[in-house]
Amino acid sequence: MPTQRRLANAIRALAMDAVEAANSGHPGMPMGMADAATALFTRHLKFDAADPHWHDRDRFVLSAGHGSMLIYALLNLTGYERPTMDDIRNFRKLVSPCAGHPENFMLPGVETTTGPLGQGLATAVGMAVAERHLNAIYGDDLVDHRTYVIAGDGCLMEGINHEAAGLAGHLKLGRLIVLWDDNRITIDGSTELSRKEDVVARHEAMGWHVTECDGMDSGKVSKAIEEAIADPRPSLIRCKTIIGYGAPNKQGTAATHGAPLGKDEIAAARKELGWDLEPFEVPDDVAKAWREAGSRGASERAEWKKRLEASGKAADFNDRMAGKLDDSWLKPYLDGLLADLPKVATRKASEMALEAINAANISTIGGSADLTGSNNTKTKTLQPLTSDNYGGRYIYYGIREFGMAAAMNGMALHGGVLPYGGTFLVFSDYSRAAIRLGALQTAKVVHVMTHDSIGLGEDGPTHQPIEHLQSLRAMPGLHVYRPADAVETAECWAAALTNDGPSLLALSRQNLTPMRIKAEGENLSAKGAYRLKSAQAARKVILIATGSEVEIAADVARLLEERGIGADVVSMPCTEAFDAQDAAYREDILPDVSNREILRVSIEAGTTFGWERYTGLHGLRFGIDRFGASAPAPNLYDHFGLTAPKITERVVAHLKAREIA
Amino acid sequence: MPTQRRLANAIRALAMDAVEAANSGHPGMPMGMADAATALFTRHLKFDAADPHWHDRDRFVLSAGHGSMLIYALLNLTGYERPTMDDIRNFRKLVSPCAGHPENFMLPGVETTTGPLGQGLATAVGMAVAERHLNAIYGDDLVDHRTYVIAGDGCLMEGINHEAAGLAGHLKLGRLIVLWDDNRITIDGSTELSRKEDVVARHEAMGWHVTECDGMDSGKVSKAIEEAIADPRPSLIRCKTIIGYGAPNKQGTAATHGAPLGKDEIAAARKELGWDLEPFEVPDDVAKAWREAGSRGASERAEWKKRLEASGKAADFNDRMAGKLDDSWLKPYLDGLLADLPKVATRKASEMALEAINAANISTIGGSADLTGSNNTKTKTLQPLTSDNYGGRYIYYGIREFGMAAAMNGMALHGGVLPYGGTFLVFSDYSRAAIRLGALQTAKVVHVMTHDSIGLGEDGPTHQPIEHLQSLRAMPGLHVYRPADAVETAECWAAALTNDGPSLLALSRQNLTPMRIKAEGENLSAKGAYRLKSAQAARKVILIATGSEVEIAADVARLLEERGIGADVVSMPCTEAFDAQDAAYREDILPDVSNREILRVSIEAGTTFGWERYTGLHGLRFGIDRFGASAPAPNLYDHFGLTAPKITERVVAHLKAREIA
Repeated sequence: MPTQRRLANAIRALAMDAVEAANSGHPGMPMGMADAATALFTRHLKFDAADPHWHDRDRFVLSAGHGSMLIYALLNLTGYERPTMDDIRNFRKLVSPCAGHPENFMLPGVETTTGPLGQGLATAVGMAVAERHLNAIYGDDLVDHRTYVIAGDGCLMEGINHEAAGLAGHLKLGRLIVLWDDNRITIDGSTELSRKEDVVARHEAMGWHVTECDGMDSGKVSKAIEEAIADPRPSLIRCKTIIGYGAPNKQGTAATHGAPLGKDEIAAARKELGWDLEPFEVPDDVAKAWREAGSRGASERAEWKKRLEASGKAADFNDRMAGKLDDSWLKPYLDGLLADLPKVATRKASEMALEAINAANISTIGGSADLTGSNNTKTKTLQPLTSDNYGGRYIYYGIREFGMAAAMNGMALHGGVLPYGGTFLVFSDYSRAAIRLGALQTAKVVHVMTHDSIGLGEDGPTHQPIEHLQSLRAMPGLHVYRPADAVETAECWAAALTNDGPSLLALSRQNLTPMRIKAEGENLSAKGAYRLKSAQAARKVILIATGSEVEIAADVARLLEERGIGADVVSMPCTEAFDAQDAAYREDILPDVSNREILRVSIEAGTTFGWERYTGLHGLRFGIDRFGASAPAPNLYDHFGLTAPKITERVVAHLKAREIA
Repeated sequence: MPTQRRLANAIRALAMDAVEAANSGHPGMPMGMADAATALFTRHLKFDAADPHWHDRDRFVLSAGHGSMLIYALLNLTGYERPTMDDIRNFRKLVSPCAGHPENFMLPGVETTTGPLGQGLATAVGMAVAERHLNAIYGDDLVDHRTYVIAGDGCLMEGINHEAAGLAGHLKLGRLIVLWDDNRITIDGSTELSRKEDVVARHEAMGWHVTECDGMDSGKVSKAIEEAIADPRPSLIRCKTIIGYGAPNKQGTAATHGAPLGKDEIAAARKELGWDLEPFEVPDDVAKAWREAGSRGASERAEWKKRLEASGKAADFNDRMAGKLDDSWLKPYLDGLLADLPKVATRKASEMALEAINAANISTIGGSADLTGSNNTKTKTLQPLTSDNYGGRYIYYGIREFGMAAAMNGMALHGGVLPYGGTFLVFSDYSRAAIRLGALQTAKVVHVMTHDSIGLGEDGPTHQPIEHLQSLRAMPGLHVYRPADAVETAECWAAALTNDGPSLLALSRQNLTPMRIKAEGENLSAKGAYRLKSAQAARKVILIATGSEVEIAADVARLLEERGIGADVVSMPCTEAFDAQDAAYREDILPDVSNREILRVSIEAGTTFGWERYTGLHGLRFGIDRFGASAPAPNLYDHFGLTAPKITERVVAHLKAREIA
């Protein structure tokens, strides 16, 4: 039986070799943490390489994602189907799933895509929440696993660490165990250059259990993990390590962090480690021992499967883990709405829709970053999810927008829950990096973002989104919805629940006039844009608007028609969905004719940047290309020229000028 | 002489009255912190209301910006020219400078715009850095002031607090004193809902001095401030308060946080506070005492002025505080460059330009969020700014992108220094909220953002910006520059240094071919876009590109010309600057003719979203509308179709299809 150190050296060698072959990458972290990872994967982590999707597996998150070779080596050695050794040889090439940073959409066994520092740990917090929540529902027999994280100094210095660690401490997530790679080195050099913090004391202050060990002695790491398992608090294990351990001339320095070691140093390291083998070669005894570690969990998995089948809950549990949702709420809800059309803010309409959604789907977990009453995210029957009641379905995230968004990603990636969370749209700037990482991973979450324009009024420019809608629409993989009234809000929620990845609802603070007043056979909002009203007179104008500006567009159309100018009104709650429609549909809504024939006009109380896509260069774009101001909303709409009379005048003037020209 | 409590009650009454008149706003914080603020403004804060711009004044930052009525009341009572009592009566209306959240561009005395939680304190950290730096240069005679902050629980829970507090502790900013409004209430209710953290222990762990006091006893607050002044570490004063203090039925509850108290409760509060006066009325004795407090600093200011005049450094000091910069570096630098054109990455070209800029301008303070060697932000002669050497000009910010950007804003707002700081462009998502707050305040900072596209290669999609360029261009007030080679990089730096507000340089990791190879009489990049190459054959195509894609555009032009198709190449390093050019210039570069006459084509290795502004709907847009991938850069450019042959084929095919159609 090879020693733990020998098993760890297989990781070290693969990390050196793969980075060298790729001529780029980060050998330092895998080499420093190889022993700790060996302890975790051979003795503690509950998994079965034969079934990476086993629902009750422990989750492992490599928050220090640049050390990706650590997890690729582990997955290969423990016997996952991928990566193969060829995949590892092709580290960081297009043909290989072994990307520069670990990507969960490339490799089962990678639980979440990491790299942007701090987010892996914050995502793991969400996984740990989901585990406790499902445990509260299904019991220890079916849900009983831990979430392990390897984090570096970067993960601990990032602001999101404060939010994630605070949330984990608050919720007493005792099954979250973080191995901190305390190598005292960052890219710029010693951690002393930028930090003089007592990391241990800080975590203790946040309700964590902290223990320390020699991170390069797998036996000691193993004991520390046992201690962490026994403690009811989330645990930070301070693993004292040497970055790049084994490279005799470079170890302990920033030089091993993010660059190949070079041929000579690798040769010296092989000598130092007693690893007299060709690149990418793993000796049989080591390979065998790792394979055995990778199938350690097979019998436990088999027993779990039996328990699931015997539980009588298998169908329910499996449906839930598969993310099955009930959409039967929509039709009766819309019928009720149309019977008594409310003039409400779309944030209120969202709450109304959520009452129906949350009743029909118990997998939703709501929350807000301390704006519950403003985001309208808490429906009547939801109980708080707390350390005393993990079965609750509402999380008071505190003033932690970024931590909330990352935790939501983690919940979604864990599976079995559908998280949604609220803040103000302007504060998407705080959580944007997590919104993006969710989009990259197609994590199914819903960001409920209220106060979506100058329509919030008096709070002023710091709180008024201007560029946010467009800057979020520019993000791949995110569906941004901006509904115009209660009916569209319900339709947008329904559409969001069918998306594979994240959705974002931009909702008004102010009350909006019902625009959609009769039943339709289909979800019009899901098409992204549709004709709300057809021109009566000969069509000269198409007014395109979103959200709170749709009623303005309808008023403009009325004023234009009074002057004999025919105008369509197009409501466009989701530009991404519209762009995905077939050409015939798009041509019907926005015919590709010159703006001299039919003038296209966009109205949105935000930047006009990007609206050329729908108006063309010679259309008109009404919006706000500067920061907002503090005043009651109606004054602001007037101030920025976004009233029906003002827009109508400008449209008419434009049409006249063209006639003369 | 009225008691301190009576002085504080004037603040309480104005806060109640103004919020009531506006029918919106946040009375709770000003009422809870009125006594603490009274202690600070009547006894400790060094200022003279007659000269809000006195360079050696103490800075006061209301980080809990929603409590804006606190600072409006203080500025009015202490005798600043504005706000007048009419301004306060018109709180939160367009006619008033008393916006919902304090805006430094509306009112002298407001040192920084606050509201987005956590950022005020993080900005204050930058102010405190600037003070120590200038003190190191000019000595105690000229620079000797403190930075005071009032922060709430939100400011302490946000992730940025970890970065800001960590940086302040690391740099031992002993002149930073934070009064924490510990009222145990957030919007959602008790802080217990979302936080079980020992805030005191956390700050001590980060190198802070912490003291506690009854925040509603101004004498005790005053003693705590004295203790904080005496301690060499940054200080957190835990002021135990009751939110909405004085409102007998609502105090201590979230109900006072963000809504008017209502007539009845205000009447009851007046009784409780012994404030038997009409709304907005301030009794003479109270008014007089506050005025005296506001002119406490007059003689100190006069003495300081004398010292400045006697110092022999007045001209230098005043120039520096006025932000005067020397641009004489540009011409000789460009001459040298053109004499020996280097094929370098623009991040390297930025370093080369910075060598010249930093030599000519000693007011620059560089830094990086732990990517010094990648961002190329540290020039040869810059010494680290540390707690042992505040005179240094380079800050190792650590892995704190958001904290860095906010601190940069604070330094710029303090005046006397020009901060620039580096990270990867993709991590603008981490610092975006501070970039925005800097843009709103026209804070003159330069964000140096390298690794600006898939051109960074192997690090993969988590590190490859796609939507970032466009989403940043959509932000009002920010100039985004993406230079194509070393000459353009120098021009962009020169342009950035002339902007009033923030600039962002997006720079390549990979080497780029020199495009600009001869001297020009002017800074072409400052125009935003210019014709790099004119069509040789009859012009059928205009290729518009930025940064690393300009050389691809030049190659496409060459391939097109070989087929007899004339093509202009337009380099567009700054869309915002181009949009600001006069119509004739824009028409010359991008003539407003149909794409059938001249096909406009954009090439940028990022989202095509928004490029319709320059290509029109019927132009062609080459870019990447999905996430990137991990591979060597040349493979990625090929994979995403961004090579000259591939683009040329598509342009030619498009032209042919049109001929046939």
